[in-house]
Amino acid sequence: MADEIVLLDFWASMFGMRVRIALAEKGIKYQYKEEDLRNKSELLLKMNPVHKKIPVLIHNGKPVCESLIIVQYIDEVWKDRCPLLPSDPYQRAQARFWADFVDKKVYDVSRRVWTTKGEEQKAAKKEFFETFKILEVELGEKAFFGGESFGFVDLSLITFYSWFHAYETFGNFSMEAECPKIITWAKRCLQRESVAKTLPDQKKVFEFIVEMTKRLGVE
Amino acid sequence: MADEIVLLDFWASMFGMRVRIALAEKGIKYQYKEEDLRNKSELLLKMNPVHKKIPVLIHNGKPVCESLIIVQYIDEVWKDRCPLLPSDPYQRAQARFWADFVDKKVYDVSRRVWTTKGEEQKAAKKEFFETFKILEVELGEKAFFGGESFGFVDLSLITFYSWFHAYETFGNFSMEAECPKIITWAKRCLQRESVAKTLPDQKKVFEFIVEMTKRLGVE
Repeated sequence: MADEIVLLDFWASMFGMRVRIALAEKGIKYQYKEEDLRNKSELLLKMNPVHKKIPVLIHNGKPVCESLIIVQYIDEVWKDRCPLLPSDPYQRAQARFWADFVDKKVYDVSRRVWTTKGEEQKAAKKEFFETFKILEVELGEKAFFGGESFGFVDLSLITFYSWFHAYETFGNFSMEAECPKIITWAKRCLQRESVAKTLPDQKKVFEFIVEMTKRLGVE
Repeated sequence: MADEIVLLDFWASMFGMRVRIALAEKGIKYQYKEEDLRNKSELLLKMNPVHKKIPVLIHNGKPVCESLIIVQYIDEVWKDRCPLLPSDPYQRAQARFWADFVDKKVYDVSRRVWTTKGEEQKAAKKEFFETFKILEVELGEKAFFGGESFGFVDLSLITFYSWFHAYETFGNFSMEAECPKIITWAKRCLQRESVAKTLPDQKKVFEFIVEMTKRLGVE
């Protein structure tokens, strides 16, 4: 019997995109279900009663939640092709550390860039650049965070690229000027079909965020 | 050549205790180095330059940071004995989900119980009980979170037990009355030598927190 795979997701979510890239890398067919985050489906509430958040991967009726946990699950179940995490335990720990860093630092500070103004935004921008500088140092001269091949850390971070235009416009800066190595790396990632086909257009994400800030009352 | 293993830690840290339990479960000998968190060592700053936090496991000179990542590393390197994570990918994902839940919810809400007062503390206590109720439901009738044997989720949560007396005293409640199943489970965990020998005395942790709140200006 073929596996039944359903993904509960939202198009602009950088967390959902991670799962879509992982599924594309592994060549796994699945049913995509777009969620209305202001009116969540019964299925989402049933499958992720604790956090009530997308993405949720439902594999033969059983849910897996939290994007980095889902990606590791996908890598472990379909381990015969395109490994996403390294096989060496030390390298795996390093990959987990940097993906966790993206979750703990990049998401929060990026959000503050477009949800704040004035002095608060100035501080957010400073921290944003510091965070990406740490990532640039970690990347060093490597092609990808894991070395020669696209992997777990790349997949965890590249999905933020679709929000860069929004960060730049709200924060009035240029990522190319501030973090050139990140942009070079991002363009390298975008040469992969899994990434290019998953990431939405930056302008479309920007328009979505403009609408959202109006609702949140930032503007 | 024997492995050289050093742990940079702080005695009252529930994150450090997780690593100590994992090392005890695996029967691994190591050098323990207590850190003064108000005057961090050069070694700590060098080994964890990003977060500058304990615990750090240094294995043959190479650092691994972040407690849950360290525990997974230990489980992968010494995989021949006492497995901490289940071997089945779905069960592994579930274990990671609940350990992540402890990190995201339990730590933050527990901290708010003893660092706040008045209405803010009342809200923190409500959320604290809700969080532990979710954990009680997940535990159900099982002996341990993973089933019959002590594992990753148990190890992630049991270290908070050493802080229970402090939460109870600051919050003026009884864990036994509010969350009886958690107390029964905790006592079961404490029958394990790895846990009993690692967890510090609750009164000693309480005295430490009293000192800390004076410094933080909570009292």
